[in-house]
Amino acid sequence: MVTPFQTRRRVEFVDTDMAGIVHFSNYFRWMESAEVDFLQARGLSVRLPWEGQQLGFPRVSASCDFLKPIHFEDLIDITVTVQRVGEKSVTLAFDFLKDGVLVARGTVTAVCCRVLPDKSIEAVAIPQSLRERLLA
Amino acid sequence: MVTPFQTRRRVEFVDTDMAGIVHFSNYFRWMESAEVDFLQARGLSVRLPWEGQQLGFPRVSASCDFLKPIHFEDLIDITVTVQRVGEKSVTLAFDFLKDGVLVARGTVTAVCCRVLPDKSIEAVAIPQSLRERLLA
Amino acid sequence: MVTPFQTRRRVEFVDTDMAGIVHFSNYFRWMESAEVDFLQARGLSVRLPWEGQQLGFPRVSASCDFLKPIHFEDLIDITVTVQRVGEKSVTLAFDFLKDGVLVARGTVTAVCCRVLPDKSIEAVAIPQSLRERLLA
Amino acid sequence: MVTPFQTRRRVEFVDTDMAGIVHFSNYFRWMESAEVDFLQARGLSVRLPWEGQQLGFPRVSASCDFLKPIHFEDLIDITVTVQRVGEKSVTLAFDFLKDGVLVARGTVTAVCCRVLPDKSIEAVAIPQSLRERLLA
Repeated sequence: MVTPFQTRRRVEFVDTDMAGIVHFSNYFRWMESAEVDFLQARGLSVRLPWEGQQLGFPRVSASCDFLKPIHFEDLIDITVTVQRVGEKSVTLAFDFLKDGVLVARGTVTAVCCRVLPDKSIEAVAIPQSLRERLLA
Repeated sequence: MVTPFQTRRRVEFVDTDMAGIVHFSNYFRWMESAEVDFLQARGLSVRLPWEGQQLGFPRVSASCDFLKPIHFEDLIDITVTVQRVGEKSVTLAFDFLKDGVLVARGTVTAVCCRVLPDKSIEAVAIPQSLRERLLA
Repeated sequence: MVTPFQTRRRVEFVDTDMAGIVHFSNYFRWMESAEVDFLQARGLSVRLPWEGQQLGFPRVSASCDFLKPIHFEDLIDITVTVQRVGEKSVTLAFDFLKDGVLVARGTVTAVCCRVLPDKSIEAVAIPQSLRERLLA
Repeated sequence: MVTPFQTRRRVEFVDTDMAGIVHFSNYFRWMESAEVDFLQARGLSVRLPWEGQQLGFPRVSASCDFLKPIHFEDLIDITVTVQRVGEKSVTLAFDFLKDGVLVARGTVTAVCCRVLPDKSIEAVAIPQSLRERLLA
């Protein structure tokens, strides 16, 4: 059985709102941050030079279920698993745990894009070696 | 046919990221802000005194599909529609439009909760008159 | 006497923290947003094409004094005045008012820079016509 | 000579803006986060039970000079030093370093406050033992 990639962060004061809990928008920031950690651990990046081109992975979809509120100074473990690698897109799934208890879970789908000289983007097939590293 | 509630905001510099587009986490902030506008237009609020109690509506789920990138200083119209009112929860749907073109769409589900004296919360049935205003 | 430029914003839920007040980092976001409004009112922008070049105004200094706490749904008026225009830099001063009462005041200093083809920047003298519009 | 307290963070994608650099508002978030680390290292906290009362430290002033731009994935070391402990206030100074080079420096002044039962606050003298830990 594969152990999923795991990263940890501590809830900051600025992450809280007047209800005394973490504002829900932060989970989406943390998924991105966990993704960066995950990609880095596999020698990848969200901005990737590739055969003379620049590849990027803009998000096309994100969702999160919030199961239990979390608070200032809580330590949150975030596991990252590859849920699906399509021809041009990749979906990552994230579990948020506090003291081993699942407090939230989310997914993010990003599309492999070529950044054109005018900074516009075009979806392209995920290069094979990159696909292999994602599925490693 | 019912015209959905609509609110507008302009993309700020801080909303952008190094890819030159709006960072995806901001759509979730904007959904909440549009919800506040929507509730206010119906005489409601995200923090609601109710028969001597304090009601709150913590989010239990949020999702968004990002169809087209948007940029600094773009004017974005956000429509809010009530997708479902359950016994204890309400789901709102949001369309993001730029110049009349759909650029993103999302949903947020919140649960009606009583805030207890120790600041913990307990899900309760949505009061009838509040339900009527949501469905108005 | 010159009436200073004024813009208004409403405190959002996400702007609050667990102390129940607006988190201090937001005042800096709002100064930038008020600056964009101010520049726009004078036909300027934070990203300005200029004789075939791209001008930008990165911040080199920012400060704010927080006099009274502000809360969710408060309406905050922000006045913008040009405090100083140097050879290469401009300092704007911001007053934050709630119901006419000063609740915070801050300054931001930005430097006029040319964006070079490699995206690095170089400080340059503020063009004369731009200086005139700032001092108008 | 005293070695100042030091903490480290990595620049996240969401911290960047369309100029390709870290948005200036994030330095203020990081100062607060570094302060939390610093207080924790001295057995203190930004929310402190004290002889049956709750003490808090709302910010009354913050400033930052931005010397060099920083970028996505940069590792930033932040040193924290106590600049001044007054009767009711404390000023912390922060140096931001990248690869040992100073890229920004800032200060934050907070006031020791008692949180009253109605959640309003009142400035009070910093308790002696707390003062000693700050000056340790």
